[in-house]
Amino acid sequence: MFQQLSFKIRFQPYMLFVLLICGSFFSSTAHAQRIATQVDVRILASGLQHPWGMAFLPDGKILVTERVGRLRIVAPDGRISAPVKNVPAVYSEKQGGLLDVALDPNYDSNQLIYISYAEPATASGGTLASTAVARAKLVDNNLTNVKVIFRQDPKTHGGQHFGSRLAFAPDGNLFITLGDRGSHMEEAQNPSNHIGTIIRIRPDGTTPDDNPFVKDSKAKPEIWSYGHRSVQGAAIHPETGELWIHEHGPRGGDEINIPKPGKNYGWPEANYGVHYSMIPIKDEHAEQGFEEPIYYWTPSVAPSGMLFYTGGLFPGWRGNLFIGTLAGQHLIRLTISNDKVLSEERLLQNTVRLRDVEQGPEGAIYLLTDEEAGKILKMTPAAQ
Amino acid sequence: MFQQLSFKIRFQPYMLFVLLICGSFFSSTAHAQRIATQVDVRILASGLQHPWGMAFLPDGKILVTERVGRLRIVAPDGRISAPVKNVPAVYSEKQGGLLDVALDPNYDSNQLIYISYAEPATASGGTLASTAVARAKLVDNNLTNVKVIFRQDPKTHGGQHFGSRLAFAPDGNLFITLGDRGSHMEEAQNPSNHIGTIIRIRPDGTTPDDNPFVKDSKAKPEIWSYGHRSVQGAAIHPETGELWIHEHGPRGGDEINIPKPGKNYGWPEANYGVHYSMIPIKDEHAEQGFEEPIYYWTPSVAPSGMLFYTGGLFPGWRGNLFIGTLAGQHLIRLTISNDKVLSEERLLQNTVRLRDVEQGPEGAIYLLTDEEAGKILKMTPAAQ
Repeated sequence: MFQQLSFKIRFQPYMLFVLLICGSFFSSTAHAQRIATQVDVRILASGLQHPWGMAFLPDGKILVTERVGRLRIVAPDGRISAPVKNVPAVYSEKQGGLLDVALDPNYDSNQLIYISYAEPATASGGTLASTAVARAKLVDNNLTNVKVIFRQDPKTHGGQHFGSRLAFAPDGNLFITLGDRGSHMEEAQNPSNHIGTIIRIRPDGTTPDDNPFVKDSKAKPEIWSYGHRSVQGAAIHPETGELWIHEHGPRGGDEINIPKPGKNYGWPEANYGVHYSMIPIKDEHAEQGFEEPIYYWTPSVAPSGMLFYTGGLFPGWRGNLFIGTLAGQHLIRLTISNDKVLSEERLLQNTVRLRDVEQGPEGAIYLLTDEEAGKILKMTPAAQ
Repeated sequence: MFQQLSFKIRFQPYMLFVLLICGSFFSSTAHAQRIATQVDVRILASGLQHPWGMAFLPDGKILVTERVGRLRIVAPDGRISAPVKNVPAVYSEKQGGLLDVALDPNYDSNQLIYISYAEPATASGGTLASTAVARAKLVDNNLTNVKVIFRQDPKTHGGQHFGSRLAFAPDGNLFITLGDRGSHMEEAQNPSNHIGTIIRIRPDGTTPDDNPFVKDSKAKPEIWSYGHRSVQGAAIHPETGELWIHEHGPRGGDEINIPKPGKNYGWPEANYGVHYSMIPIKDEHAEQGFEEPIYYWTPSVAPSGMLFYTGGLFPGWRGNLFIGTLAGQHLIRLTISNDKVLSEERLLQNTVRLRDVEQGPEGAIYLLTDEEAGKILKMTPAAQ
C-alpha cells in the first residue's frame, strides 16, 4: 500500500521522496524483521511518448527513443531536446516503432550511434515490416551518414514481436535481439531466416568469420542463436563478457537465457507457459534437444530492459541483474552466481510499466516508464 | 487488491470462493497476458491457538499441534477434538512450545507418532529450554508409552530459534531440524553441541552407524550438518530422497539448503542478510569454506513449512516446492531443476502468516495460519 500511495505522489513532476524499496519496515517478530534498501526515486523527465530505449552520452546527456519514431536528447537537468533530425521512417503500429539506441564503443572518436526499429515496406495486402538497425553519426541534433547495417529477413505482416535490444560485446561485435513477429512463431525454429533469432554482426554490418552458421548454406550467417520469441532485454555480463538476454513467453514462460553460438532455445516447441490458444506447450527444453532457460517467470511479468549493476552508489547491489517489467509493473533485482539465479527481489511493486533500465555514469539507476506521457525515473540511495 | 479483499471474505468460516492465484487476469497487451491457476481456498477449521505443525492420519483426520502445548485431531469435516492427553509439558514462551508432529513410517502397524517441542528445565537464574523429540503411541485421544528420543544439548536461556521440523528419510532414519537458540549463534559453528544443527537418528533415538561424526570424539554423533540458524522447514525430495531444508536469516538471508553429511552451512560466519546489530555479515559462503545455499531471500520472508507437491489435483504443480511465509504473508511456489531454482511465484500475497504447508491424501494443499485463532486452509482447484 505504502508504495502505491507514494508512487502517486512520486508522479508529481520534480518531487523527491524516499521509498523503502521492500515496503515499510516490518517486525512482527524479531526473526521476521526485514532489511530494506532506502532509495530516492525522482522524475528526471516526463512527457516522452512511450519511451523505449536510452543510452548515456559522454557529456552525461541521455539519448532516448520514443516508440512513435522520435529520438530525443535529455539533459542531466531533465530538459528534453527537439526531435533529432534524419531518423529513418519507422513502422509505429502496436509494438513496432523506434526501439533501442546504443553508442559505438569508440563514440568519443567517431560519434557513431546505432538505433533499432521496425522498418516498413509497402506491399500488396498492406504494409510489411521487420526489425532493422541503422548506424549514423550524431552531430548536434542531427543524424548524418545514416546507413542501415541490418534488416531482419523476411519482412512480414503484423505488429508484434520486433524485439529488440542492441548490445556491444567486448570483442567489438554487435548483438541485435529480434522477435518471432507474432504470426510466424514456427519460423523461429528455421535458421534459414532471421525470425526469432539473436544476430551478431560487425559495427559496419558485415558478418564475423567466427559466427556459428557462416559455413552453413541453409542458415543465415548473421544468426548467433535461434528459437527465441521476443527479446526485449540484453546485457553483457561485466565479468564473463557473455551476452545475457530475457524473452517474453506467451501466457507465462518469460525466460532468461545466456545464448550460446548456434544453439536453439526452443520457441515455440518448448516453453514454460501456455499458448494463447490455451494449447499446452511441452515445457522440457532439454528433453527435446533445446537449451533450458537459466530462470523463468510463470505467470508472465513481461520483462523489458536489462542491467548488470556495476556502480558505486549501491555497493550492495554490485553484480546484481536488474530487469524492468511491463505487465508486472515492478523492477526485478536478481542475485547471480555463475549461471544460477540465487535470489529474486521485486522493487517498486504495483507502480508502472517499465520499458528500460540503465546505469548512469554516476552509478544511479535510470528507468523508462511505458506510458503515453512516459518518464525517466532516477533512483539513488536515500540520504541516511 | 483483489486478493486482499477476497481474503477478508475468505475469513468468514465455511465460506468457499474462487481466487485467481496470481491476481485478477491481466491483458494490457497480448504479450503481457498472464496465465493463472484458479483455486478454491476454504477454511477447514479455525480457533486453533498458533497452530504449528500437522500430519495426516490414515483415516483422513489431521493431527495438529498448537504452540501453547496442545495436540488436536481435526476431522475431514473440520471438527476439532479435545486436546490429546499425556502430551509432555512444553516451554511455551516466545517461539517455544509444541512444534512439529510426524507419523512413524509404519504407523499403520504401530500407531507411533513423533512430536518436537521446547522442553523446559528449571535452573538457577530461571527456566532453561531446548528442543526435544518424543515418540508415543496414539490410542484414541491419548498418548501412551511416551518416550523422549532426543534432547538438544545444552539447554539454554531464551525463547528463540528452537527450529524445528521432523522428516523421515526413505532409509527409515529421522531428521530433526534445530535452531541456534538466538543468544548462542556462535555455537552453531561448534559441532561438540547440538546448537544450530540438523540431527539424524533412528526412530528409537539411537544413532545410525553411518552418521558423519560417529567416529569424531569432539563432535556429537547425532549431528548430520551444522552452521544453521533456525530451521522451520524440511522435506524429503520425492525423487532423490534427499533432505531439503530452509532456514531463517537475521535481516535477510533466509536460505534453502540441501544438507550434506558433516557439512557446515556457515551461520553465523556467512549469510546474505545483516545482523540485527546491523553489523554486516560476509556473504560469500564458499570463499570461507562453507556450503552455499541453493537459493535465498533478502529481504526476509521468514519461511515456515515445506512441501514437495506430488498430488493429482494440481498436475501443473507436480514436483514444485511450496513454502509458507510468516513475515512475507504469502505462499511461495518454486519450480526446481536438480538443485537449481528455475522460478519463484508468490501466491496468496499479503494475506496471513503461514506456519505450515502439507499435502492431503486427496492431493489438496493444506495451510496452517499463525494466529491467536489460527486456521487450517484447504486449497483445491476451482471448478472450471
